[in-house]
Amino acid sequence: MTPLPRLLGVDLPIIQAPMAGVQVSALAVAVSNAGGLGSLPCAMLTADAMRSELTAIRAQTDKPFNVNFFCHVPPTPSAEREARWRDALAPYFAEFGIDPATIGSGPGRSPFTAAVAEALAEFKPPIVSFHFGLPSPELMARVRSWGAKILASATTVDEARWLAEHGVDAVIAQGNEAGGHRGIFLSSDITTQIGTFALLPQIVRAVSVPVIAAGGIADSKGVQAALSLGAVAAQIGTSFLLCPEASTSALHRAALKSEAAHHTALTNLFTGRPARGIVNRIMRELGSISAAAPEFPLATAAIAPLRAAAEKLGSGDFSPLWSGQNASGCKEISAAELTRELAGLA
Amino acid sequence: MTPLPRLLGVDLPIIQAPMAGVQVSALAVAVSNAGGLGSLPCAMLTADAMRSELTAIRAQTDKPFNVNFFCHVPPTPSAEREARWRDALAPYFAEFGIDPATIGSGPGRSPFTAAVAEALAEFKPPIVSFHFGLPSPELMARVRSWGAKILASATTVDEARWLAEHGVDAVIAQGNEAGGHRGIFLSSDITTQIGTFALLPQIVRAVSVPVIAAGGIADSKGVQAALSLGAVAAQIGTSFLLCPEASTSALHRAALKSEAAHHTALTNLFTGRPARGIVNRIMRELGSISAAAPEFPLATAAIAPLRAAAEKLGSGDFSPLWSGQNASGCKEISAAELTRELAGLA
Repeated sequence: MTPLPRLLGVDLPIIQAPMAGVQVSALAVAVSNAGGLGSLPCAMLTADAMRSELTAIRAQTDKPFNVNFFCHVPPTPSAEREARWRDALAPYFAEFGIDPATIGSGPGRSPFTAAVAEALAEFKPPIVSFHFGLPSPELMARVRSWGAKILASATTVDEARWLAEHGVDAVIAQGNEAGGHRGIFLSSDITTQIGTFALLPQIVRAVSVPVIAAGGIADSKGVQAALSLGAVAAQIGTSFLLCPEASTSALHRAALKSEAAHHTALTNLFTGRPARGIVNRIMRELGSISAAAPEFPLATAAIAPLRAAAEKLGSGDFSPLWSGQNASGCKEISAAELTRELAGLA
Repeated sequence: MTPLPRLLGVDLPIIQAPMAGVQVSALAVAVSNAGGLGSLPCAMLTADAMRSELTAIRAQTDKPFNVNFFCHVPPTPSAEREARWRDALAPYFAEFGIDPATIGSGPGRSPFTAAVAEALAEFKPPIVSFHFGLPSPELMARVRSWGAKILASATTVDEARWLAEHGVDAVIAQGNEAGGHRGIFLSSDITTQIGTFALLPQIVRAVSVPVIAAGGIADSKGVQAALSLGAVAAQIGTSFLLCPEASTSALHRAALKSEAAHHTALTNLFTGRPARGIVNRIMRELGSISAAAPEFPLATAAIAPLRAAAEKLGSGDFSPLWSGQNASGCKEISAAELTRELAGLA
């Protein structure tokens, strides 16, 4: 038995990674009820939507669950950078007959604020996790006020030490294999991002809080390997993407099941921050990292109409097809069954 | 007990990674005599030097050992690319008072040829490993003629399948964490390179030959984790670099023991092919991957005098400080002791 049950009150050392845009409460409820730790990603939810998802979770489980937030500093929009970005996308706007003048503000990603903390306090979620660093000490104290445990992602040994010094209850060691957004926050240099095999034991050695492994873990053997490297639990995202409880699109599901899933890359094209997804046309043609992409989350606005137009034609050429480097554990089974399989119980 | 003893005749599931430039026979002998598989890197050895090292190995051990070769196609030098490269390095030539007209041909890296195979046949090494693909079927047959087992590195699932189809006895799954040259050979796109946690189980599933794990493995827990992911053995390089039997330079040893070792990157600046080393001045200033660097191994020539001049001043600013992403297992103990520790025996 690992220290995780004591820390988080769950039976199994399995955390379902919060995945904004491809899941809401249904997946979290299923995983928590199966004995793992389900997670609700809140970065793309309005306050009302968050309340509604939290109400759904509270109605369907009395097990511990996790809510996840981003901690970025909202950027000041730069007209020059936005213009450069639209220039880079201009050939595609022409191809799809999109008038750039009609581009809206796009789906945003909001950081954790005092208003969010107040809304959250009504629900007293037992575990709160953060990505891109931590909120202010005042907001951390507010979260602790209802007894919540705080987790946060580290992508380097330095980030792990920083998080431990700032009072997290456990560090999530996010190896470079992980899908979706890198939690990187002390640097913007993606060459600092290292693989789980190297990152996990070095973080375990560097901090005294428990460490959760993330990145490239796809099945029970992977979970066992992570535990033998010193993790108290494994956080797993990609493997859950084909579960019926996830809201993964049909296009995204098809990509995960195809040979294309063997080639992912870190890309900033979809949001402005590096995130790992399956390589598609826009990533191949613009390069997966572009200096033209506006700061997170502003890059999303101009690419959103291209995504919508292409998806209408059945194409994922402009969609963020988030995936880690190991999609081999994706299964079209219930999240409860998958949770138990990951824990070696099925 | 893993299948490795049956395959390679060794007692312990530990392969010392061949590391051209930082070790010759002494390290290989020590590891083989301790029950692991020692390796002699031959890519930078002349035929005479190779004979002399093989003679030394045969004199000092009757245990199995491995000899390693590169399988690149020697490039046609491009005057234009060489000129671009020297332009990129010009400020440094000026700084060190180096006249570019005096630049020699630099230390080369030779691929495996019929002549090398003949020289090798005199010694009948029981195991031969290849990097950057495989030699021709004729040369493969020649190596097999004395009963040698053949290993080769795969950095993607596709490469593993290709190697298995071309008759290797085992595949080395080289995760992106690994130090030194990437074995990549079916692509030149480094975004295809994935971490050990993701690569290893996918290769284990894709091929029917045994799989050896490499990349990010630094201690016995790492070896255990690799075995639980389906590997028959772990190939470990970086951890051996501080052993007295390695010829690692004092500068390189100091870098491995410093905080600098937390930040490595893939770089083509030193040879023309991507290889992982500790980030130093030239990598920071030119970017770790440069389009100006001539094809492997031609990039070495022009950077060699800078390396020599800087090293004379005690600086590793222009040296390839090869290291994987996990230098935490480096220990100043004998290679025999380290081999036993890695296998969990000490």
